[in-house]
Amino acid sequence: MIRAPMATEKVEIPKDIAREEMLHRMRHSCAHLMAQAVQALFPETHLTIGPPIEDGFYYDFDSPHHFTPEDLEKIETKMLEIAKGNHSFTCTWHSKEEAKMFFAARGEKYKLEILDGITDEKVSYYHHDTFIDLCEGPHVDSTQKLQYFKLLKIAGSYWRGDEKRERLQRIYGTVWSSQKELDDYLQRLEEAKKRDHRELGKRLNLFSIQPEMAGPGIIYWHPKGAQIRETIENFLRETLKKEGYLFVYTPHIARLDLWKTSGHWDYYQENMFPPIEIENQPFILKPMNCPGHILIYKDQLHSYRDLPIRLAEFGTVYRYERSGVMHGLLRVRGFTQDDAHIFCRMDQLQEECANVLKLTLHILQTFGFRDYDIKLSTRPEKFSGALENWELAESALKKALTSLNLPYEIDPGEGVLYGPKIDLKIRDCLNREWQCSTVQVDFNLPQKFDVTYRNSEGKESHCVMVHRALLGSLERFIGILIEHHAGLFPLWLSPIQATILTITEGQNEYAQEIRKSLLKENLRVAWDERTEKIGLKIREASMNKIPYLLIVGEKEKKEGTITVRKQDGSNLGAMTCDSLSALLRKEIESRGQNPI
Amino acid sequence: MIRAPMATEKVEIPKDIAREEMLHRMRHSCAHLMAQAVQALFPETHLTIGPPIEDGFYYDFDSPHHFTPEDLEKIETKMLEIAKGNHSFTCTWHSKEEAKMFFAARGEKYKLEILDGITDEKVSYYHHDTFIDLCEGPHVDSTQKLQYFKLLKIAGSYWRGDEKRERLQRIYGTVWSSQKELDDYLQRLEEAKKRDHRELGKRLNLFSIQPEMAGPGIIYWHPKGAQIRETIENFLRETLKKEGYLFVYTPHIARLDLWKTSGHWDYYQENMFPPIEIENQPFILKPMNCPGHILIYKDQLHSYRDLPIRLAEFGTVYRYERSGVMHGLLRVRGFTQDDAHIFCRMDQLQEECANVLKLTLHILQTFGFRDYDIKLSTRPEKFSGALENWELAESALKKALTSLNLPYEIDPGEGVLYGPKIDLKIRDCLNREWQCSTVQVDFNLPQKFDVTYRNSEGKESHCVMVHRALLGSLERFIGILIEHHAGLFPLWLSPIQATILTITEGQNEYAQEIRKSLLKENLRVAWDERTEKIGLKIREASMNKIPYLLIVGEKEKKEGTITVRKQDGSNLGAMTCDSLSALLRKEIESRGQNPI
Repeated sequence: MIRAPMATEKVEIPKDIAREEMLHRMRHSCAHLMAQAVQALFPETHLTIGPPIEDGFYYDFDSPHHFTPEDLEKIETKMLEIAKGNHSFTCTWHSKEEAKMFFAARGEKYKLEILDGITDEKVSYYHHDTFIDLCEGPHVDSTQKLQYFKLLKIAGSYWRGDEKRERLQRIYGTVWSSQKELDDYLQRLEEAKKRDHRELGKRLNLFSIQPEMAGPGIIYWHPKGAQIRETIENFLRETLKKEGYLFVYTPHIARLDLWKTSGHWDYYQENMFPPIEIENQPFILKPMNCPGHILIYKDQLHSYRDLPIRLAEFGTVYRYERSGVMHGLLRVRGFTQDDAHIFCRMDQLQEECANVLKLTLHILQTFGFRDYDIKLSTRPEKFSGALENWELAESALKKALTSLNLPYEIDPGEGVLYGPKIDLKIRDCLNREWQCSTVQVDFNLPQKFDVTYRNSEGKESHCVMVHRALLGSLERFIGILIEHHAGLFPLWLSPIQATILTITEGQNEYAQEIRKSLLKENLRVAWDERTEKIGLKIREASMNKIPYLLIVGEKEKKEGTITVRKQDGSNLGAMTCDSLSALLRKEIESRGQNPI
Repeated sequence: MIRAPMATEKVEIPKDIAREEMLHRMRHSCAHLMAQAVQALFPETHLTIGPPIEDGFYYDFDSPHHFTPEDLEKIETKMLEIAKGNHSFTCTWHSKEEAKMFFAARGEKYKLEILDGITDEKVSYYHHDTFIDLCEGPHVDSTQKLQYFKLLKIAGSYWRGDEKRERLQRIYGTVWSSQKELDDYLQRLEEAKKRDHRELGKRLNLFSIQPEMAGPGIIYWHPKGAQIRETIENFLRETLKKEGYLFVYTPHIARLDLWKTSGHWDYYQENMFPPIEIENQPFILKPMNCPGHILIYKDQLHSYRDLPIRLAEFGTVYRYERSGVMHGLLRVRGFTQDDAHIFCRMDQLQEECANVLKLTLHILQTFGFRDYDIKLSTRPEKFSGALENWELAESALKKALTSLNLPYEIDPGEGVLYGPKIDLKIRDCLNREWQCSTVQVDFNLPQKFDVTYRNSEGKESHCVMVHRALLGSLERFIGILIEHHAGLFPLWLSPIQATILTITEGQNEYAQEIRKSLLKENLRVAWDERTEKIGLKIREASMNKIPYLLIVGEKEKKEGTITVRKQDGSNLGAMTCDSLSALLRKEIESRGQNPI
């Protein structure tokens, strides 16, 4: 017997509710709406969970019916029909026992498993029209608010995200406050799809992932992608060296004991690959570069006069991710950090952090990112290190931010166990935010590894460590760059900066001469020497996102010039090899800060 | 009862015996001589094995007595006494059963174990004076030939090289034909000791190995060592790119299946680290870069016009070595190959091999190595691929060697399963040979992975692959460089090229100015700004093998000059910052080919 719900509470929406909070509620409510429509059309479908996510929502269904894109249209029509009914969202409270009976009677076994995991005595349902879901809310007041939605795609998933559990079907959707907002979003999606780094990476032959042969989430950098990575590494290395960083190389494996000393084995094990046994000793594929840099620091004695010591590395680390969550270059199992660790005295901390921030901005701006979102995370409830040091470190970070006039938000209590940190997000041309740079103060590892310097009184004193990565992961950053530039990189980053397109074989010798003289100027120049029509050559070079097309026919050969076009089709006319070279060099040296 | 030996055969030495063969016999005989002396002095000592080795011999003893350096002198005296007795070496043959009884009676349990492993019916003893050893020979005719020897050191070892078996004591010695030869050798040893890259690496702060914390055989490159490696990588990258190589990056792990397809799992497993289980899939730390490069090649379609494709990588590989055999940078568990794989057509093979050899010589000469020992290894009895291709490949390699006028020896049947190869050894300043470069033709992997191109008739055809490494392992090559140069690198490789030594604080500002202007010229310049006496600063900089010492006092400051000394103490007098910079740049650009 199913009891009638307890006293019902209509959803009241506060007047001053923020736009973001409102969208969040709409997305959550729309997930319920979709679930109702799905069960109405496919009654054998079981519900699992359906949360709001960034820009939309999803619901994971267990259904004997295999959903198709055509089904999505039917579901949308049904959803709209229900939404127009102007049904209120209401909330009721029930004992857990009662809820178990209720969902058992409906055959909703996943809800029962969820209930088993809830420790509270009472649970809430949300109702609208005939639909009831076990849910904490919050929701909108009425289904009428849910008019501007769109179902986007069907994907496979697993119950509890566990490959060993039931396979589910996930339907993604989005909902907005107006038709215009919805249209804008769908257009952004369309634009993002065109910029998808996985598609572009394949089409431009930049990298590959070979899940069957080699495994998921590890990147094979093809020559053109490797050239981009090399250019970035060279630029960073040159810039960092000028700032007093010293580069090191550390190995990819080390004894498990090292990771026990560092504490990673206790706190980070689920992200680490399992040990490899060698002569009865377990070894670990490195998930972090810090312990290696500490070993290098500790191999020598240091006086207070030697500090700060800034050790940098393009360190490739390996971290376990479930095979289901990997995503192109953005989420992988192996990646290369532009990592560095600064060993300094407490009195040097502020200046070091300010320098790191300044360097970060310089580097991000060089890559064309000028919009940031900066957060300072302060002392959490559980922390290691002396309170006094935390206060000094937080104040050092604040002063560093202020000295550079950087606006920031404080995330109270969100610092890591071992120290406060600054996180910086960049915004790409589609207005998406990406967490890249991080600056973290650390009192913990210097204690664990006894990382010291001899102070001015001749006593051993613990260093402060600063962990910092500016781009974060090179793989991920290049993924972002591909999408940001839609594959058309600024000249200094372009793997091929220009290509010579000969009209007939008659210009082969002249083309070779030009190529040689441009290569001498360290320009990356290709030559399409096929006997194809020039129109085709131009189209292909343009498709391949080569910034400059150098067209060479009989006329150019006679006059000793090159006709120069840009990738977008604009024509710069004829010029000599020398002026072209000067033009390109200037654009490269400006690193896109002053594009022609 | 011990039976008298069977018919004795005196050792006869052929008249035309080569010097090397004679030294080999002397070393083997001297091991017996030492064993006799040891058992005479320490009767409870048991014998294991005592082979001749390069430049000398050793014997592994199981003795309750703990040998000390003082013992070595006593043993030497005893050996000389026996040697002067002019005892003949003789050989007798015995049945295995008889030998077992003989050595059992003497309590020589290790000899019994050796006998257990022998499948022949008869075994030989070698006798001299009162000493008898189970031995295959050959030996010298008389102990009188063993006058110019020296015992060198005591080391720990294990029976059968197995850490789980009995711990033994190994005594090393050397023996030569004359006092002069012995003296020369001991001096070379002394010189090699001074050049030991492990000592210099530590003293010059180039790298460390941290067996306790991180594990044996993996290298931590400190800033100065990392700078050397970076300079080498940059030089190679620049040079290879000009030769049409394309650089890639491949990950350090891949599924075991990849190594099954390549055949490494079947034929190379004992050198590989054991698998890591991830989501029930075994993954392997890469011992080779070839399969990764093949995956990149195969990710695209290729026409006969696209070949050759030359993929290069500084690829860090991990190979299992027993912890006992590791040696500084020379024998390690993780190292970085200057690896490349050329995918080409059969008709391109000769030119490609000739180009690789030309490049190899250019690069080795740049590093100062001009003496080579080249071997061409031809088809072994067991081989894969068509006979016709083997003949073409061997002829291509021969023609490539001949076209460059390179003298070489043929090692018949010593090619690898999958193709013929050329190995090149370099000779260092102590006349030691080091195997570095290798060029291997491969018909096998292209078959296993179905690596093809579309030929001119539009059909898929298998590529030929050339595996080539010029320096081999960067770690090992840098180890050799350290010993070859005794830590004083040519200027272009020096991690610190010059250091400014100020006489008093009065020149600090001037020193900073000089440093800034030299750094701008991309020179690696340090500054010793301590308030120490100039004599001490000069001594320390010289000890630290910094090529140029820039001394700056009041006089220099007033005159706008620098007093320049070289590391060896030679004085180049006063010069302006500009002329110094020009001098250094010229020496760097010549890469030591025309040292000043």
